[in-house]
Amino acid sequence: MNPLFSRLDELYEEIVEIRRYLHQNPELSFQEEKTAKYIADFHEKLGHEVRSNVGGNGVLAYLKGDKPGPTIALRADFDALPIQEETDVPFKSVNDGVMHACGHDGHTATLLGLAKALNGMKSDIEGTVLFLHQHAEELLPGGAIAMIEDNCLDGVDVIFGTHLQAQMPLGEIAYRSGPLQAAPDRFDIKIIGQGGHGAYPHQTKDSIVIGGQLIGNLQQIVSRRVDPLESAVVSVCSFEAKNPFNVIADTAVLSGTVRTFKEDVRSLVEQEIGRIIEGTCYAAGAKYEYTYTRGYPTTVNHKEETEFVAALAPQVPGVEAVNETEPVMGGEDFSYYLQNVKGTFFFTGAQNPEAQETFPHHHPKFDIDERALLIAAKVLGSATLNYQKNEAAKEAETAQ
Amino acid sequence: MNPLFSRLDELYEEIVEIRRYLHQNPELSFQEEKTAKYIADFHEKLGHEVRSNVGGNGVLAYLKGDKPGPTIALRADFDALPIQEETDVPFKSVNDGVMHACGHDGHTATLLGLAKALNGMKSDIEGTVLFLHQHAEELLPGGAIAMIEDNCLDGVDVIFGTHLQAQMPLGEIAYRSGPLQAAPDRFDIKIIGQGGHGAYPHQTKDSIVIGGQLIGNLQQIVSRRVDPLESAVVSVCSFEAKNPFNVIADTAVLSGTVRTFKEDVRSLVEQEIGRIIEGTCYAAGAKYEYTYTRGYPTTVNHKEETEFVAALAPQVPGVEAVNETEPVMGGEDFSYYLQNVKGTFFFTGAQNPEAQETFPHHHPKFDIDERALLIAAKVLGSATLNYQKNEAAKEAETAQ
Amino acid sequence: MNPLFSRLDELYEEIVEIRRYLHQNPELSFQEEKTAKYIADFHEKLGHEVRSNVGGNGVLAYLKGDKPGPTIALRADFDALPIQEETDVPFKSVNDGVMHACGHDGHTATLLGLAKALNGMKSDIEGTVLFLHQHAEELLPGGAIAMIEDNCLDGVDVIFGTHLQAQMPLGEIAYRSGPLQAAPDRFDIKIIGQGGHGAYPHQTKDSIVIGGQLIGNLQQIVSRRVDPLESAVVSVCSFEAKNPFNVIADTAVLSGTVRTFKEDVRSLVEQEIGRIIEGTCYAAGAKYEYTYTRGYPTTVNHKEETEFVAALAPQVPGVEAVNETEPVMGGEDFSYYLQNVKGTFFFTGAQNPEAQETFPHHHPKFDIDERALLIAAKVLGSATLNYQKNEAAKEAETAQ
Amino acid sequence: MNPLFSRLDELYEEIVEIRRYLHQNPELSFQEEKTAKYIADFHEKLGHEVRSNVGGNGVLAYLKGDKPGPTIALRADFDALPIQEETDVPFKSVNDGVMHACGHDGHTATLLGLAKALNGMKSDIEGTVLFLHQHAEELLPGGAIAMIEDNCLDGVDVIFGTHLQAQMPLGEIAYRSGPLQAAPDRFDIKIIGQGGHGAYPHQTKDSIVIGGQLIGNLQQIVSRRVDPLESAVVSVCSFEAKNPFNVIADTAVLSGTVRTFKEDVRSLVEQEIGRIIEGTCYAAGAKYEYTYTRGYPTTVNHKEETEFVAALAPQVPGVEAVNETEPVMGGEDFSYYLQNVKGTFFFTGAQNPEAQETFPHHHPKFDIDERALLIAAKVLGSATLNYQKNEAAKEAETAQ
Repeated sequence: MNPLFSRLDELYEEIVEIRRYLHQNPELSFQEEKTAKYIADFHEKLGHEVRSNVGGNGVLAYLKGDKPGPTIALRADFDALPIQEETDVPFKSVNDGVMHACGHDGHTATLLGLAKALNGMKSDIEGTVLFLHQHAEELLPGGAIAMIEDNCLDGVDVIFGTHLQAQMPLGEIAYRSGPLQAAPDRFDIKIIGQGGHGAYPHQTKDSIVIGGQLIGNLQQIVSRRVDPLESAVVSVCSFEAKNPFNVIADTAVLSGTVRTFKEDVRSLVEQEIGRIIEGTCYAAGAKYEYTYTRGYPTTVNHKEETEFVAALAPQVPGVEAVNETEPVMGGEDFSYYLQNVKGTFFFTGAQNPEAQETFPHHHPKFDIDERALLIAAKVLGSATLNYQKNEAAKEAETAQ
Repeated sequence: MNPLFSRLDELYEEIVEIRRYLHQNPELSFQEEKTAKYIADFHEKLGHEVRSNVGGNGVLAYLKGDKPGPTIALRADFDALPIQEETDVPFKSVNDGVMHACGHDGHTATLLGLAKALNGMKSDIEGTVLFLHQHAEELLPGGAIAMIEDNCLDGVDVIFGTHLQAQMPLGEIAYRSGPLQAAPDRFDIKIIGQGGHGAYPHQTKDSIVIGGQLIGNLQQIVSRRVDPLESAVVSVCSFEAKNPFNVIADTAVLSGTVRTFKEDVRSLVEQEIGRIIEGTCYAAGAKYEYTYTRGYPTTVNHKEETEFVAALAPQVPGVEAVNETEPVMGGEDFSYYLQNVKGTFFFTGAQNPEAQETFPHHHPKFDIDERALLIAAKVLGSATLNYQKNEAAKEAETAQ
Repeated sequence: MNPLFSRLDELYEEIVEIRRYLHQNPELSFQEEKTAKYIADFHEKLGHEVRSNVGGNGVLAYLKGDKPGPTIALRADFDALPIQEETDVPFKSVNDGVMHACGHDGHTATLLGLAKALNGMKSDIEGTVLFLHQHAEELLPGGAIAMIEDNCLDGVDVIFGTHLQAQMPLGEIAYRSGPLQAAPDRFDIKIIGQGGHGAYPHQTKDSIVIGGQLIGNLQQIVSRRVDPLESAVVSVCSFEAKNPFNVIADTAVLSGTVRTFKEDVRSLVEQEIGRIIEGTCYAAGAKYEYTYTRGYPTTVNHKEETEFVAALAPQVPGVEAVNETEPVMGGEDFSYYLQNVKGTFFFTGAQNPEAQETFPHHHPKFDIDERALLIAAKVLGSATLNYQKNEAAKEAETAQ
Repeated sequence: MNPLFSRLDELYEEIVEIRRYLHQNPELSFQEEKTAKYIADFHEKLGHEVRSNVGGNGVLAYLKGDKPGPTIALRADFDALPIQEETDVPFKSVNDGVMHACGHDGHTATLLGLAKALNGMKSDIEGTVLFLHQHAEELLPGGAIAMIEDNCLDGVDVIFGTHLQAQMPLGEIAYRSGPLQAAPDRFDIKIIGQGGHGAYPHQTKDSIVIGGQLIGNLQQIVSRRVDPLESAVVSVCSFEAKNPFNVIADTAVLSGTVRTFKEDVRSLVEQEIGRIIEGTCYAAGAKYEYTYTRGYPTTVNHKEETEFVAALAPQVPGVEAVNETEPVMGGEDFSYYLQNVKGTFFFTGAQNPEAQETFPHHHPKFDIDERALLIAAKVLGSATLNYQKNEAAKEAETAQ
């Protein structure tokens, strides 16, 4: 039997333990100091070369194989969310209002388990494995960009990463070449009209009426201005103009989100929102403030690496289905790595098949089936070893 | 008995005859040459000093009384409308597509009858009576303004006029001091977007969507920007963007009307339409053309002269009710006279009390109760003689 | 000199003192117990027949003249507002968050001063004077309706009242026959859509988009459905849908005010708001809650009584101008009295001509020129005595 | 050299001649009698079994190979458009107002040339080739559905077809597995309000205002109600409410097109348009008529057959690029064949590389590079022979 898989099987209980420890001790984005130390200690004990405080709380750990070959980065994020946990698991969060409600505890446990497994296989490793532990995936600007600026990708040839999916069946791996996750941007608009008595509208510039018009006009971006073959979402999610019932609103404060998969569509939407606000406020004689905050870029998987993972996944024990997925509208800062090196990001099903009900990510009752960690570790480990083997083969061929 | 009233009673049949002749031979605005000649001839036969071709087809006829005194102008308009008559009166229009559907035939017959009656009462007339026969009331820019520029008001001290109202009961006189009839303006808008295939909206600037938005935005002028204590109407009455069902419209052509009573409200509306078009088209990246054509100004009656008529009307035989009326939204170029001299314009009920159904002005089945002509003549004649008498009295008083 | 006027002149300082006492000790609507007692005590000291707790905190005081004649009610309201005073007058409110910011302190002082003055003139009084001290004018449902139900108008022939106007010049009296103050209604709308992730609008019913549309559609009530010769205002003043920027709003809560002068227009607006909400929510598959709360009815002055006051006002010392006013869009529960008995409500200018700046009613820096109290007392007193004199004269005439 | 390709090269001039003859003699959809006869005659001369008047003007011609094997249908449409040709080619349309402005002349010439080429290669043909000449592709309900009902697909195993693309470079073949062309539906809406005088909006139900609102509301279908990962277009292309500038419109007539790729999205859009019209008209108290006419279904290519063509195309002389295309929003009734049998529809570039300017399909100056006909014939012929060869091979394998 494949020695990696049997090693991981043996480590499964420890992986679960690690995950539960992390789950119980979550830390918010950009505040993950204890978690970072825990990770660094773990790798140091294994004898890996460790670099801490990378671009903030990021941790890099390098495992050098006995043979030469490419450097493969495996990424796991480790921050938690400002959510009050409502599960009743025994390893429930001990930090009030903070919860691992997106599975990053699982990502990290997967990577640490894999690190331990590979550590004992140095003779099989043809090149270097970089365990890239990223902080702050949940909060703009994210940890990835700072880690990249702090040279975390130096020497890296390819990067792999996965996200556990609590509502995708255990045993499924989902991949997609090209755009996988949308760019999740934010906009904030303040309409500055002029308030006054509800009985005398002509002495005012009614911010609520202007806001109402603006919302209507913004619908046209998706319905008329974006190519119907492209995906785009413009959602005004918040509208604040709380006032006494008989006092016309001075200002209205709107905010919302934009989701796109292509840079030109994204720029078009940003620009059209601006144009529509300007025209709408001009028509009403009002002023405004508009800010557009770009979230992570679209996560665009590289074709060759994606097909490589899709091809090997069926051979991994525990994997029962390997499917191409539709893109998803949520964002992920793995996107930055893929702008710099080749690689792919895929989904690992983590839905407990026996659960009565499963909750979406970011839900106070979010949970995962821990068996998914083992599967994820096997796919990532398999990708690492096979990729190095392929490269060595190519090398050999070229050398002839 | 009042000699004027008995003279008019005797002339009633002739007045009716004149009205029917005019009704049968209607002429369009600015083309009323035969009607003008008919009127001039009538006055010449009576020996009045006549001036024809005043500001176009206008006719002025002067009756000088034996005693000195003020000059009182009485105005009647005489143009017809481009409507195909659908009544079955024996004196139905013989001119295809042209009809006296607003009662101007009655106005003219009233004035000619009154002219004949007063002609025999020179010794009672203290001053001059000017029979002011105006062409082209129905079509912008109207005949009044050209007649005034051609000096029709020279020497005039006061002016009176009336409009027969087919849907106001016979026997009623309605007056109003201040604004009586609205300023009826017109606007024309061409939205210049960019057409294209219905399946590819992103390659177009959709004129119909822009037009739809514009209509919505224009509602705010009346609902938010005009003082709620003032009256204003902004109606988009025409929207043309006829296209194949699968070709996005290049342009949309809108036109409509604005009604206001005050100059500042009127200017505000004109300006706000412009601002809203500009903002709306800017937001959509489209171009536009906008023209605003001012119709007649608001007809603003003078207080003293209005109360004078309101006070004498109840004494006139046939008058059963004298009421203050609400302003009406329709326009009237009598407004120009009132900008230059004192005076008042009032309504004379002409609804046949026996009629099963009565039709509004400008309707192909429009008709009036001819007895209203006699009443109108008596009120106008009475106003003339009494006004002169009052002035003489004041003169006498001042002279003492 | 007129004995009433000289008596009031002598009482001026006491009137000012009363006003300042009341100003310093304001009480909220429906909680004015001490103020009511103060008023009742004052009248009792004068020997007037007093009825307390009328329809709540209302106080009635009757002064019977030596001669028979009609009963004339003079009304003053005495509640204060939930506003933190920001003036620096020495008699500033001692009650935190409560302020006489609408002049009701002045109204009451005026009436008490006038009561004292008339008390010494019993031989001149031909009939009865009812000093009608009303609580709770500022808060729906108001005190008037309860006092009427508690028979405060029993035997009353006519009622007069005035409101001090801080932004109308001292020395001016303003009257209007017919509608003087609008009916100020309130509406509350809750749009019940379905929230969700900002990236997945198709899984939601977007309450903010529905709300935006609703606001636009409501504009048509005034612009298209109400007769342009009538006044109406529909203002959406509050829109609450505060949400994270990436979560589509579940509900949106709107509230606003409607102002009308005629009952049929009011009913039309109420009904059309309902129809528009229903249609708009149906189109979006959403639910809603809608409540329409009628405020006071329109204050409609009686013609004869209004002209009576307008005619006598110029004779009152201190009155420099008597003008017909445009209607105002704010409401007043004096309207209920006028639905039951004849009478009129007028405005008394109270703007300090030397003030650098004057503040509107309900402003934390609101103040009045106290000389207006003397003028108001003289006009009301004059109206009382003259009205009785006129009635006696009519009586005498009829008797002959 | 491949004998099919050399045969077609020899026939190139004849193919061009046929195309030019057809171009000069275009016939409108459902009226293509002469064209049908021309086609039938051509095949009869070659000795093919011909069936005419299939489902209207459709023509089927069968070429049986010497060996057994599957039946492969090759489809070409042959109707023209109601467009006045504005090119100056020597073979310009002689039929006023009718033009081959979509390339169907080329499709037919391609198929006839290929028929002649294959006719001489019977010994190489393992099965049957059905030349499926379809009338009326341009006009709903299209000829395909009637031909299918008339059994044109009986015994057919697979179908291939191509469309010449005037704005895709000569030498390019574009394919797509799954949805290739959208379902092009049509909607017609009549808003039935109530007209009236432009000055009296309250007496009307303003169809133009309702129409404006409706257009705005319809934008939400694409922006809010359709999954952002799906494509949909809702375009209001025509809005007719032509009226005098001062008469409020009684009715407004709108029509437009809907494009979708999936049946559930299509049904959702149809239903949501209906819901929005109903709600919008209800809110305004107006009536309406709404019809939704389904055009052709989405053209969904079968995966295996598409990949088969994509794989063989690069081997065809003249083909310089084989690309996966994005779906296109225009419709095609080839979709019906693909609902019944396996097959694929692909695009053949026909843009003249030397042309200064090229015009889109349905343009009066539309033209194609005739060399594309030869390429199309080679790809279709190649597909036919290879498909049969593969099937024979499979058969042989199975037989073992």
